[in-house]
Amino acid sequence: MLINVPETVVADALRGMAAAHPDLAVDVEHRIVVRRDAPVADKVGLVSGGGSGHEPLHGGFVGPGMLDAACAGEVFTSPVPDQMARAAAAVDSGRGVLFVVKNYTGDVLNFDMAAELAEDEGVQVAKVLVDDDVAVDGSTHTTGRRGTGATLFVEKIAGAAAEEGAPLERVEAIARQVNESSRSFGVALDAPTTPAKGGPTFDLPPGELELGVGIHGEPGRERRGMMTSGEIADFAVDAVLEDLRPDGPVLALVNGMGATPLLELYGFAAEVHRVLGERGVAVARTLVGDYVTSLDMAGCSVTLCQADEELLRLWDAPVRTPGLRWGM
Amino acid sequence: MLINVPETVVADALRGMAAAHPDLAVDVEHRIVVRRDAPVADKVGLVSGGGSGHEPLHGGFVGPGMLDAACAGEVFTSPVPDQMARAAAAVDSGRGVLFVVKNYTGDVLNFDMAAELAEDEGVQVAKVLVDDDVAVDGSTHTTGRRGTGATLFVEKIAGAAAEEGAPLERVEAIARQVNESSRSFGVALDAPTTPAKGGPTFDLPPGELELGVGIHGEPGRERRGMMTSGEIADFAVDAVLEDLRPDGPVLALVNGMGATPLLELYGFAAEVHRVLGERGVAVARTLVGDYVTSLDMAGCSVTLCQADEELLRLWDAPVRTPGLRWGM
Repeated sequence: MLINVPETVVADALRGMAAAHPDLAVDVEHRIVVRRDAPVADKVGLVSGGGSGHEPLHGGFVGPGMLDAACAGEVFTSPVPDQMARAAAAVDSGRGVLFVVKNYTGDVLNFDMAAELAEDEGVQVAKVLVDDDVAVDGSTHTTGRRGTGATLFVEKIAGAAAEEGAPLERVEAIARQVNESSRSFGVALDAPTTPAKGGPTFDLPPGELELGVGIHGEPGRERRGMMTSGEIADFAVDAVLEDLRPDGPVLALVNGMGATPLLELYGFAAEVHRVLGERGVAVARTLVGDYVTSLDMAGCSVTLCQADEELLRLWDAPVRTPGLRWGM
Repeated sequence: MLINVPETVVADALRGMAAAHPDLAVDVEHRIVVRRDAPVADKVGLVSGGGSGHEPLHGGFVGPGMLDAACAGEVFTSPVPDQMARAAAAVDSGRGVLFVVKNYTGDVLNFDMAAELAEDEGVQVAKVLVDDDVAVDGSTHTTGRRGTGATLFVEKIAGAAAEEGAPLERVEAIARQVNESSRSFGVALDAPTTPAKGGPTFDLPPGELELGVGIHGEPGRERRGMMTSGEIADFAVDAVLEDLRPDGPVLALVNGMGATPLLELYGFAAEVHRVLGERGVAVARTLVGDYVTSLDMAGCSVTLCQADEELLRLWDAPVRTPGLRWGM
């Protein structure tokens, strides 16, 4: 691993973000990344966060058109309520703050407590839970579906609405619509290595796949011997389409988990498009790359979001963050 | 690996690029990625290419403000002259074409032959050789220094000059200036896995580093037992600064080789900034991410480019490609 010591991995990364991105204000001590121009007058604030190890999610999505602040926890561990409340206070312009919360037990509890803390300080808070992963219903870390790739769609699209000046209820409603319109499925070809453990977080024999893996290496639906990229696309897309039956075009995120070469990920994107074509689903936009990762896990996930014209317009709206950037 | 069969990896990836990026015209048969609006009237054309496995380089750098076309070879294998000549013909507006060539024996020979073919067809061609890697002087694949991370700086900055309407001699001179002002050094923590071989391309015992590795896993200067991120930054930056003695601010590329988590890469970026600060080198811009990769190799590289005000202005100029995008 490219680290100093496991204990400083998150702080070291935040120092690097501060060095590389002068547009961001990085509070290394409290592990919060904030838009430098926050609070933006008359704008609803968007705050997210979660365990580290999923970069660029969430800190890499802070900037105009997306998040106002992100809180970084230890690797694969929720940040604490004080961070989230502090972030809310830093970005609130008086029009309220939306918390974007991935559905993991620790995150849900901590964001709930943070909302109470923030409201005690006079910040109006709404929350949206992201629970898009169709692989399992409940797991060691989760009640209900896990929150994975759809987080990017929620943060981008709700972020665009907030940037346009939409009120808190509207930003919350759009975030909820995006989550309800999105489903994901992930596949591991290898396990991630956490700094603390120094080795793989689970045992996946060479030549086997974990179908339905979570972004912390949580178990999925089943293990199989190696499949082709095309077979994996069939399996993943069909799993998503069992839950999401789009009657219009979709946004597609073809996401790398960390160690899958972009060359292979583009080949997988071709197969995802092939399957969607065969199932009669039109693709309006496709994003290919490592966006919601699991350290150095080899593997990929597919997230589809049924997007009406308004969601598509907000998706295309300008954004300027380290991880996503266009139109400005 | 996330592939169908090794034989179709490059074609599959190009199909994925075509599906994901409607702004690009992808000729899967001839393995050429071209700006859809090429040839752009009154603009010098920029053409690059090389072996696949380094994505987003080069195909992901095609678009307004950067390359007009990129030719994809097999994994770690030069494309052929016919591809390059075909690309030159597709992008030439009559103002000539610049070939950006990484210094590997196969690429150099093939781009030379392509230049002759293109000139026979009436296309004026200039060439710039990128040879920034200070690790070794000559190797199995190279005479002189290898071409690595500086390719991104050359393609972005010369691309911006071409987009502004600079004539061929000027675009070539800027490309040459960028290359001469840039030096790189790479480190492997693990070997890449090629589709054809299905296993690592070289043996690096766990816990050892290859200092000075090339982007095809070529040997570097020496092997050592594991070092901290800070120690690696000291070694890599000092190796670069032995060759490049900047008397002004630099552009810094802190590049992931493929499988290094972005969390770790940002921590490494912090250490690179620390070392540069200690050596009295000011950093004008920092780019952190997987840009010039070696499939799923774990590791990183540092590229520094001494940038005067004009280079900095061209670096900041708008660009819209799958791999780099800002300002438009």
